[in-house]
Amino acid sequence: MEEKIIKEIYSKSDKKILLFVIDGVSGLPVNGKTELEAANKPNLDNLAKKSTCGRILPLEWGITPGSGPAHLSLFGYDPFKYQIGRGVLEALGVNADLRKGDIAVRCNFCTIDENEIVIDRRAGRIETEKNKQLVEKIKNEIKEIEDVEIHLYPGKEHRFVLILRGEGLSEDLNDTDPQKEGKKPVKLKPFDKKSEKTANIVNEFLKKVKEILRNEEKANFVLLRGFSSLPDWETFEEKWKLKACGIAYYPMYKGLAKLVGMDVKENIENFEQAVEILPDVFKEYDYVYLHYKETDKKGEDGDFEGKVKEIEKVDKFLPGILNSGADVIAITADHSTPCTLKSHSWHPTPLLVHSPLAEPDPCEKFEEKEVLKGYLGTIKGYKLMPLLLALAGKLKKFGA
Amino acid sequence: MEEKIIKEIYSKSDKKILLFVIDGVSGLPVNGKTELEAANKPNLDNLAKKSTCGRILPLEWGITPGSGPAHLSLFGYDPFKYQIGRGVLEALGVNADLRKGDIAVRCNFCTIDENEIVIDRRAGRIETEKNKQLVEKIKNEIKEIEDVEIHLYPGKEHRFVLILRGEGLSEDLNDTDPQKEGKKPVKLKPFDKKSEKTANIVNEFLKKVKEILRNEEKANFVLLRGFSSLPDWETFEEKWKLKACGIAYYPMYKGLAKLVGMDVKENIENFEQAVEILPDVFKEYDYVYLHYKETDKKGEDGDFEGKVKEIEKVDKFLPGILNSGADVIAITADHSTPCTLKSHSWHPTPLLVHSPLAEPDPCEKFEEKEVLKGYLGTIKGYKLMPLLLALAGKLKKFGA
Repeated sequence: MEEKIIKEIYSKSDKKILLFVIDGVSGLPVNGKTELEAANKPNLDNLAKKSTCGRILPLEWGITPGSGPAHLSLFGYDPFKYQIGRGVLEALGVNADLRKGDIAVRCNFCTIDENEIVIDRRAGRIETEKNKQLVEKIKNEIKEIEDVEIHLYPGKEHRFVLILRGEGLSEDLNDTDPQKEGKKPVKLKPFDKKSEKTANIVNEFLKKVKEILRNEEKANFVLLRGFSSLPDWETFEEKWKLKACGIAYYPMYKGLAKLVGMDVKENIENFEQAVEILPDVFKEYDYVYLHYKETDKKGEDGDFEGKVKEIEKVDKFLPGILNSGADVIAITADHSTPCTLKSHSWHPTPLLVHSPLAEPDPCEKFEEKEVLKGYLGTIKGYKLMPLLLALAGKLKKFGA
Repeated sequence: MEEKIIKEIYSKSDKKILLFVIDGVSGLPVNGKTELEAANKPNLDNLAKKSTCGRILPLEWGITPGSGPAHLSLFGYDPFKYQIGRGVLEALGVNADLRKGDIAVRCNFCTIDENEIVIDRRAGRIETEKNKQLVEKIKNEIKEIEDVEIHLYPGKEHRFVLILRGEGLSEDLNDTDPQKEGKKPVKLKPFDKKSEKTANIVNEFLKKVKEILRNEEKANFVLLRGFSSLPDWETFEEKWKLKACGIAYYPMYKGLAKLVGMDVKENIENFEQAVEILPDVFKEYDYVYLHYKETDKKGEDGDFEGKVKEIEKVDKFLPGILNSGADVIAITADHSTPCTLKSHSWHPTPLLVHSPLAEPDPCEKFEEKEVLKGYLGTIKGYKLMPLLLALAGKLKKFGA
């Protein structure tokens, strides 16, 4: 309902919007201070003073988001409604060439014994280098089955991605991963007539793979999960009438931008380059999504000092970001990644929005406790987009 | 949708959860202070300092909950979706033996004149003692009608509960209470074929009751309301995968726990006993709901000083409660009961959650104004359960 209303009251303006996601930047206290509270970040704090602040609740209290749902939410898609298949997410994470109609599958190398019982679902977490060799070997021997192209992408350790491309494929197939050691892989069964062809192709693929991997000590078979295809969602541009571009240097985040139909700058290797091209990108686009990764990584590593340093590093980029041509700037995280937990968490994350229309509030720092003083209170991630549109002068009055 | 997702990301842990409901504990200021603000409650305040705090909005702004919806919400059931019939609620309130398939009806003794016009819908609010005698008299004369058992339970003043037990009964019958004096009782009409049998039985019951009460001065007839049967809901254990026990010493609250399928400790006479058995109960159960009643009663009486004393009394029990074996402790009320209103109210009520994963926030006291500083902000009652699951380490990440 709200989405329909936003379309009705939409009004063009030439104002440009930047969403800057500092991945997992918020956290929990260690010796009384969170990573943000411990960091020296004069630019972020100064901006917070001049901005409207608050908190983003990524999903719900107690529900920890993966990167996919957390980003979708910031892009204005209710993440409980717009769910991404596991195979598709993995394909995005390896920057696979995934097209409409393709079927993406998340695969694990595994170890089976002579009776085909799975004795290690992760093949002893083989080295990524070994994984690459094995995937290369399979790729060389299986290029297509019947009229269906087979594409493979190695991931980390035991993980790889299978993509099927052809006519009449279906995602309605069960996982073959038995989820427990000591069981045989689950037989692939088509859910209905429409998925029979895909089941046959995949069964043939499995037969060939077993033959190819026969002599491997550890990785002598594969398990499949999360058959899925690109969703047929309204694109970001259709939804928000903004020409949008994603600037990220990790495949997953480029993938998530592409998933909602954003253009993506492909040859960005690091954050410095990302900030450098920002002014040029704003000449072409109405909305830019900019992503910083390392804060999340240090959080996942439980490296408090390292995360603090990353925050201080981001802070130095801020003047450049502020002068890049955006009229409305939102800075937040997709989720918290507290060093104490070494993982994502459900906790709300600070948000600041800066624009001539966003009045400063009593919040003086970009920190977890301080933003409690902000005007915005705590809002769900997918409620951010309409706010940014309004601050960019793109929403008229609703009702007379 | 969210409920489905919570099931998907559920992960077992041995952590135990306590929900402690201090009924109606929050209120509105008298001479500048609420009951909580006036009370000396060092244990509650100290715990608030070490906990994550916030507020529960029981239903919605402006919508005052009865005990039923307020508790359902805290148990994680959206109270607007899960509605309890009036008859069932009354039956819970008198601790009636109400079984699946039974029909429960809320009844009032009333006064009718010689033309069967209702001249007092509450029979002059007869004494509870008189009520008991009359119910006993009817019970002795009507034990069954056709193949249907008739069970009666006296309530307070003019109220009692009728329970029908037998095959093929239906709750689809209208109230006979005309809602106004000066009218005849409404005729009982079956809504459909399926409710004809029940209508006949109840009409027969009314005929006999009129005969039995013929010579009573005040309570010479009865009015019926809220035909209803136990709902066929998912149980608390099915919903949250927690073995749950309710500890309460008032029938209504035991009834509400039973309504969602919790086990209930039956022979608890007061709060002291409730706290005493807590450690033993936690050996058997994953989740305990503990209820304190008197704060609400004093609020309903408008007895400010009395309510303050009850809060101080609860506070002394806190050390025992904290050492009972719970890993995650939530303390809140089901709703506010301000002495100024002498009734329940819709106002949000303080919430604290204590666990190693719940970081302390700037909130230093368990009080209405102070909890505004808490991290949790204001959340709906039924959003509490997923948060408690997360704090007990029982929820995995949603999406990759």
